[in-house]
Amino acid sequence: MRAVDLIMKKRDGKELSRQEIDFLIQGYVREEIPDYQVSSFAMAVFFNGMSFKETGYLTRAMIDSGDVIDLSKLNGALVDKHSTGGVGDKVSLILAPLAAACGLMVPMMSGRALGHTGGTLDKLESIPGYRTDLSVDSFIMGLEKVGFAMTGQSEKVVPADRKMYVLRDVTATVESIPLITASIMSKKFAEGAEAFVFDVKCGTGAFMKSIEDAETLAVSLVNTGKSLDRRISAVISDMNQPLGLTVGNFLEVREAIECLNGRGPKDLMDLTLRLTGHMLLLSGIACNIGSAEELCRVKIEDGSAWQKFLDNVELQGGDPEIVLNPEKGPKAGRVVSLSAREEGYVERVDAYLVGLAAGLLGSSRARKEDPVLPEVGVELVKIQGDSVKFGDELCLIHGRDPDKIREAEKLLNKAYKLSDEKILPSKRVMKEIVNQ
Amino acid sequence: MRAVDLIMKKRDGKELSRQEIDFLIQGYVREEIPDYQVSSFAMAVFFNGMSFKETGYLTRAMIDSGDVIDLSKLNGALVDKHSTGGVGDKVSLILAPLAAACGLMVPMMSGRALGHTGGTLDKLESIPGYRTDLSVDSFIMGLEKVGFAMTGQSEKVVPADRKMYVLRDVTATVESIPLITASIMSKKFAEGAEAFVFDVKCGTGAFMKSIEDAETLAVSLVNTGKSLDRRISAVISDMNQPLGLTVGNFLEVREAIECLNGRGPKDLMDLTLRLTGHMLLLSGIACNIGSAEELCRVKIEDGSAWQKFLDNVELQGGDPEIVLNPEKGPKAGRVVSLSAREEGYVERVDAYLVGLAAGLLGSSRARKEDPVLPEVGVELVKIQGDSVKFGDELCLIHGRDPDKIREAEKLLNKAYKLSDEKILPSKRVMKEIVNQ
Repeated sequence: MRAVDLIMKKRDGKELSRQEIDFLIQGYVREEIPDYQVSSFAMAVFFNGMSFKETGYLTRAMIDSGDVIDLSKLNGALVDKHSTGGVGDKVSLILAPLAAACGLMVPMMSGRALGHTGGTLDKLESIPGYRTDLSVDSFIMGLEKVGFAMTGQSEKVVPADRKMYVLRDVTATVESIPLITASIMSKKFAEGAEAFVFDVKCGTGAFMKSIEDAETLAVSLVNTGKSLDRRISAVISDMNQPLGLTVGNFLEVREAIECLNGRGPKDLMDLTLRLTGHMLLLSGIACNIGSAEELCRVKIEDGSAWQKFLDNVELQGGDPEIVLNPEKGPKAGRVVSLSAREEGYVERVDAYLVGLAAGLLGSSRARKEDPVLPEVGVELVKIQGDSVKFGDELCLIHGRDPDKIREAEKLLNKAYKLSDEKILPSKRVMKEIVNQ
Repeated sequence: MRAVDLIMKKRDGKELSRQEIDFLIQGYVREEIPDYQVSSFAMAVFFNGMSFKETGYLTRAMIDSGDVIDLSKLNGALVDKHSTGGVGDKVSLILAPLAAACGLMVPMMSGRALGHTGGTLDKLESIPGYRTDLSVDSFIMGLEKVGFAMTGQSEKVVPADRKMYVLRDVTATVESIPLITASIMSKKFAEGAEAFVFDVKCGTGAFMKSIEDAETLAVSLVNTGKSLDRRISAVISDMNQPLGLTVGNFLEVREAIECLNGRGPKDLMDLTLRLTGHMLLLSGIACNIGSAEELCRVKIEDGSAWQKFLDNVELQGGDPEIVLNPEKGPKAGRVVSLSAREEGYVERVDAYLVGLAAGLLGSSRARKEDPVLPEVGVELVKIQGDSVKFGDELCLIHGRDPDKIREAEKLLNKAYKLSDEKILPSKRVMKEIVNQ
């Protein structure tokens, strides 16, 4: 077998076999196949796509390129959720303890903040003492004791994805649905979960800008999962506005705590319950989405989800005192209020611009090596649909550096768009794709 | 400027500017842009193509990557011909002295035999003593003294093409019309000619199998030339059957000598006169193709083309004795005759199979490093349209190794296809595309 013939086959629109895809990926990881062949292959995939079967082979080959975390000895339904990334997306912080309280085991491996998007690891680490660099043993112990655990990805898991992602980033081959699918799925399956719910974000603050693109990815995820005999559901959710009221690491932890205590904003709670509900459906704990969401509500009202959160914080080294009294947590040195300079109804609060503003203040990083600040971010006071009078507070800017606060102010002024007419807030859940 | 943005631009179907293409090519040659970016760029070009303007920029950037042979001080119309490669194509050996006899200057840089195709340099070197590794000064002296000179390409000319070709070969990006166009054109213009006639071969023995593909390439060559203000004509010629009666290095030299003495086979002479005629049109020496071909015929009949050939052989170190008495030249140790095992008319003699047979006997090489044999090859006795009786001699196999002769025999048996019905030989010139 020669790599050049496989590139040609894909270039000419033919389907590759499992052996052929294995040959490419294992050869690449072993450095027998050079970058320049994989990049032209990736470009051919960009143009000609891959069938779900091929995408499944690719996912499998990537999983096989490294270690797989074996959770089979755990006695529980292992289900996880993955979001394609957004602004103000603290769902994982609420969903993981909630799903654990409902009886699932959630082995969650998360990423870091980059650009205008946040990262679950950075949010958790804003809790003083909280550690996300768990060993496999601690990860398994966390799952056994609490029902969920939160960690970063090991370097040994899916090395093929790491290698390919760096290459795709510099060869204009990131935006390929089968390559995105295999990248997401391989990482998720290598972490040991059996079933998944994907939250495919769609809108200005998301990777996928249009509903068509988001749906293509969602369908690819679900059907590729099917080709691998894995149960997968996907929810497409609106990311034109930030999710909930806060964007920034500890600000979002505080909001997650509110949610777990039954005081969360509607849009965030609705989406979290829907995603957790799908996890319960996949595991068979619930048999329709209505009863699944009802079970979630009960587990919040009776405090058991909140207790799971506390147990996890304690186990992963976070300061329980801060979680119980978030006002004692990281606090910004400067809080500046942005006031309305006109009247009307909030037509939109652009997620991308809010994400940029929060990132600029220090909640995210421009390059992977940069540090993040725990206390900074944006707190929305007015959101889509709210009526606004002249001088009303639109949002609060939590910052450290006055220059950056001024820059963030400009972005946030642009992010808010008012309308003379009444506006109905849009629904978060746009579409659901369920593996039948 | 970043290479990744330019790859993305081409991937998304946009046109690149001259600066952008220069940035890519010069960066690549200086090793600032890595192979993996150029290979994904080449694959994007494979899918999205390039405008003639872009192909012109690419050609220009490739020329600028290395030395250009400056022939501007020569006092003459510098016109060359380039063929895309075929079987039995000894046109250059006849055309160059003929064009010189008509008053042109032909600075010819040729290639070597590879696979089933022959190479002008290998043919010339089958003349004992003939040298094709001329210095630039000797090349210029040859042009001044004889009106034409034959040499190989210097390593310093168009290094970008050399580098890109090696990469394209292993990344399935060879078959791209704009990349092929820029590769051919940059090499040709760097050698110092002002105008060109391209012989685009089409058929089983050629790189382009279909007339559509051949025409696409021919149109691309002519229009890209136009975008660079260069006069270019293209002739699409049939390469389903070998050209003339011989395939093999010294066998072809002998046939070229016959042609220059007015005894050449019709198909070969027709094509040679047409191509030389177009060179005369481009230079303004003739003003219509009829008078151009007529001038060529005169220069063969009066012996002046033949004299140019002799002058060149002497100047480039070849043994004039051998050229004047080709029967004293390299001769195969074994000559085996292939006889007809049925009756009828020759429907076709497959160029690809004859090329393979001759290559196998030693007239071409499988890898660039292999040597070639001067004396071996195939001599056709019966060609398309000829009537054949049982036992008639179809062709002669000139070889060295009996095993290889047996293998060649099998290929040649397959190459000959007879028909019960009378067959008219096809015309060599299929289409002409002239820069207006």
